[in-house]
Amino acid sequence: MLTPVSTASDLPLDAVDTGAEPGGTPVIPRGGGRDAITGAAREIFAERGYHGTSIRDIAKRAGLSLSAMYYWHPSKQHLLAALIEESTYDYFHRCDEALREVGDDPADRLRALVRATVEYRVRRRVESNIGTQEWRNLEPDNRERLDGLRRSATQLWADIINDGVTRGTFRCAHPGDARRSIVAACNAIAQWYEPSGELGLPDLVERYTEIALRIVDYPS
Amino acid sequence: MLTPVSTASDLPLDAVDTGAEPGGTPVIPRGGGRDAITGAAREIFAERGYHGTSIRDIAKRAGLSLSAMYYWHPSKQHLLAALIEESTYDYFHRCDEALREVGDDPADRLRALVRATVEYRVRRRVESNIGTQEWRNLEPDNRERLDGLRRSATQLWADIINDGVTRGTFRCAHPGDARRSIVAACNAIAQWYEPSGELGLPDLVERYTEIALRIVDYPS
Repeated sequence: MLTPVSTASDLPLDAVDTGAEPGGTPVIPRGGGRDAITGAAREIFAERGYHGTSIRDIAKRAGLSLSAMYYWHPSKQHLLAALIEESTYDYFHRCDEALREVGDDPADRLRALVRATVEYRVRRRVESNIGTQEWRNLEPDNRERLDGLRRSATQLWADIINDGVTRGTFRCAHPGDARRSIVAACNAIAQWYEPSGELGLPDLVERYTEIALRIVDYPS
Repeated sequence: MLTPVSTASDLPLDAVDTGAEPGGTPVIPRGGGRDAITGAAREIFAERGYHGTSIRDIAKRAGLSLSAMYYWHPSKQHLLAALIEESTYDYFHRCDEALREVGDDPADRLRALVRATVEYRVRRRVESNIGTQEWRNLEPDNRERLDGLRRSATQLWADIINDGVTRGTFRCAHPGDARRSIVAACNAIAQWYEPSGELGLPDLVERYTEIALRIVDYPS
């Protein structure tokens, strides 16, 4: 089993390097070995899959020696877990931000969560697909820890949808299946959406917001 | 590149061994080496993934010699492609059957297609997940061939939804996104549904039929 060295959960949220947006003062300097490794790992895991990748390939792509590589990540497993963990925390961070902008109306909160999720699936498409494809390659202790994060994400959706049903804002009879369907539809975006195509992100968000509101049976 | 030896596409549909239900007179005897291999490959791919599996592991699990194994499948790649191909043909077969039972009303046709898909995702859960997880491990010629099958499945959904929109039966403004969302929701069932749990298959079908009809905006 692994001894984590430095994972996102050890860092304050604003110190996690999302690879997308600057935020706070990083504990580990940005642009250093850690960023290069994360970028290289993301590329190579996406191209060849976890089993098709060696830690040597990642070090080479990152332009680092193996010993520099081991300074940050003692194993390929550690790197995979750190990649999934960091991107999950980034997702929570984006959800929090989106939810802070709205009040307590369940429809507004569902709209905010769909927007944060669709944007995340587009902007962090590669990590989204790595999270889906490589989940089963997590070793038991990492899987257990990250499963806790997944359950938190599930709860975020469940709380909003259940609240909407309790208040009569949403009329769906099966909130659990509504949640699973909305999440599945949003997650699939990472597999088919082409950012360079004709459909822009704001329109994509609007379409999936409408679909989500129909799934929970919100009267239009 | 591979030279296919015997794949589902070479066989008449009713000769494909679905591993679930008998049908027609099999070209290759049931219960022989081919069935044992398919069963073993299904189990081991699901447990360890394509890269974690050797053809020797599969032969051992199937209780066959390596030479008997090579008689049916010259490579692990051939076996993966055959597994995905066979289960895809089985899916088409089930969709055809379901659609033959209904007329040309788009809502009835969508109900039939959702039912066939949900039932397939439950009854052939393991193959469904292998198809999703291992798709990227198909070599280019196999991927191209199987992509053609995938496109046919997409077209099946698109034809029904587009027809419903044209006739005014469905009021959704974006039929392509409605289709993707319904398919994603149905496909996700293979990942979470527990056949031994409290929710029976008929109720599951009913819930996802309702969700699909809401997604296409069918007036209830």
